[in-house]
Amino acid sequence: MSFKAVVERIRKDVEAYQSETRSPIYLALNENPYPFPEELIRQCFESIDPSKVNLYVDSPSKEFLKELVDYLSTDSWRAREEQISVGNGADEIIYVLLLMFKDLSIYVFPPTYSCYEIFANALGVKVNKVPLRGERIDTKTLKGLLNEDCVVFLPNPNNPTGHLFEEEEIFWLLKTKALLILDEAYFEFSGKTFAPLIEQFQNLAILRTFSKAFSLASQRIGYIVANPSLIDAYNRVRLPYNVSYLGQTFATIALRNKRIFQERVRKIIEERERLKNALRSMGLKVNDSKANFVFVYLERERTERVYRALLKRGITVRKTEFGLRMAVGQPKQNDLLIETLEGSL
Amino acid sequence: MSFKAVVERIRKDVEAYQSETRSPIYLALNENPYPFPEELIRQCFESIDPSKVNLYVDSPSKEFLKELVDYLSTDSWRAREEQISVGNGADEIIYVLLLMFKDLSIYVFPPTYSCYEIFANALGVKVNKVPLRGERIDTKTLKGLLNEDCVVFLPNPNNPTGHLFEEEEIFWLLKTKALLILDEAYFEFSGKTFAPLIEQFQNLAILRTFSKAFSLASQRIGYIVANPSLIDAYNRVRLPYNVSYLGQTFATIALRNKRIFQERVRKIIEERERLKNALRSMGLKVNDSKANFVFVYLERERTERVYRALLKRGITVRKTEFGLRMAVGQPKQNDLLIETLEGSL
Repeated sequence: MSFKAVVERIRKDVEAYQSETRSPIYLALNENPYPFPEELIRQCFESIDPSKVNLYVDSPSKEFLKELVDYLSTDSWRAREEQISVGNGADEIIYVLLLMFKDLSIYVFPPTYSCYEIFANALGVKVNKVPLRGERIDTKTLKGLLNEDCVVFLPNPNNPTGHLFEEEEIFWLLKTKALLILDEAYFEFSGKTFAPLIEQFQNLAILRTFSKAFSLASQRIGYIVANPSLIDAYNRVRLPYNVSYLGQTFATIALRNKRIFQERVRKIIEERERLKNALRSMGLKVNDSKANFVFVYLERERTERVYRALLKRGITVRKTEFGLRMAVGQPKQNDLLIETLEGSL
Repeated sequence: MSFKAVVERIRKDVEAYQSETRSPIYLALNENPYPFPEELIRQCFESIDPSKVNLYVDSPSKEFLKELVDYLSTDSWRAREEQISVGNGADEIIYVLLLMFKDLSIYVFPPTYSCYEIFANALGVKVNKVPLRGERIDTKTLKGLLNEDCVVFLPNPNNPTGHLFEEEEIFWLLKTKALLILDEAYFEFSGKTFAPLIEQFQNLAILRTFSKAFSLASQRIGYIVANPSLIDAYNRVRLPYNVSYLGQTFATIALRNKRIFQERVRKIIEERERLKNALRSMGLKVNDSKANFVFVYLERERTERVYRALLKRGITVRKTEFGLRMAVGQPKQNDLLIETLEGSL
């Protein structure tokens, strides 16, 4: 095949990634509604060493890794450095894991994070889909399918629905011996993590990000926590200098000031609950999201109609085939969202 | 195959990326010896919009893309936005191109940039090696091999030798119809580019980086210039948000202040020539590098001996099977390098 034929095949087969156009109230990407604190930006710039900017900087740096260890550790579990690595956003980690395990049977459970399939398509990697039953994992179908030759990508809380899976569902998956990539991008909003379980389960890997709770989406910093063998293999396949020095500096300072972000997380959770209640009182089917967004189940036609009504008021949300996903915004944005929804029903 | 077997296969087959340990005078990674200017760091800091840091930012941003167009354009050629894309370092672009063209015949001409092979190994992509004859492309061997089913990765200036290929050699490659990925990482030091030729040759792609002339290695910003079809395909396979907002801000401000960097490039070139002459006057075989490093051809045993002598004085250079590659440092570092080399011969 000629290189031109390869280029044309990619252009035909791989859909271009597109996010909704920016609008005054933009709730389509589950971003944190609060800017990164100016005081911390100042701290970051003061802590930058100009004579390091021109150099290749370890990724992760020792400093950053130390902060990650502290952040991950709990009263009963101390994380170790060799259990952790980083990515250019959690997205890069997903991308590299898909490459590493491309010859195995990869599973996702729709509705799920759209990028698993988007990246798999871009990489020519096959992904098997076993839809959730309601909001539960379809263990009946999966029983005969999952084994140690399989890899499962699962967000918890789930995306786009925002619900947490039951502990038993996670344990059920772990016991199939499949490698479970548990994507805890929204962990700070749910308060629920399975990270300490990597000590017991060699088939568990946890993904996290600084893009949500830490207001650092633009800086591209994700991390993976798993047994040292898996981390070592990941480090050999990924790019060596994958997270920038400034990105690491911002993330390090964010962790050293985590109380600021935890306070904001509390505010976002309060707003999430307010939003849920308001939507429910309109008779909408809203699930019990534990993330920084809410999900409204709607039939396709109504999804389209409500989506357009919101857009007319400058509010952009995420349209899915099951309904609408709406990031929790700042209180006034949520007020307008609620008001517009009321008018559109 | 089980996921554990995949992990173990990777750990066995893929060498871990390792760079030489940092030492007081570190000339192993062809970094710019001058820190990013503090005044420009201040400008970057002032131009950052805190209410963008929490958001996913287009990569490339319109602002950055506009600066790249201006920087690339010459008196007789105006680049267009659709001919340009960006990467998390030029390294990510190489990584993604290897993925895109993994089923074609990929060629490199050793001695060459080591990462082509390192990344190909990590990705399980086969690379064919046709060594240079002296410093010339082995057109005799390649004549029957190269056609439109082939992809060639070639640094110009070459790395580790630093020499420029002849124009006729580049045209010869282009006429084979193979896709030529011309890696101009050191373009600012050689002054020689083939970028405007992308208008004539659909099979030419140019790679560039901010890691060398612009003192931004830690920020991970590379770019690719090629025909719009190839750029479109690349954009579909790469990660959507691959370059950070701060990285793009730094690169944009670097381009707006390019005279500062051009002045430093002139200084580095002066030092490169001084270094070359000093080494030649010691009777060493030094080639005509046009990059920010010099290459000394040495037999294997002598390479080892000189490498160790330098290391004892805190000077780290890059050891290759053909000799030593030494980045041009600041004048006093180069003085010590010359003095130590004189003593070690």
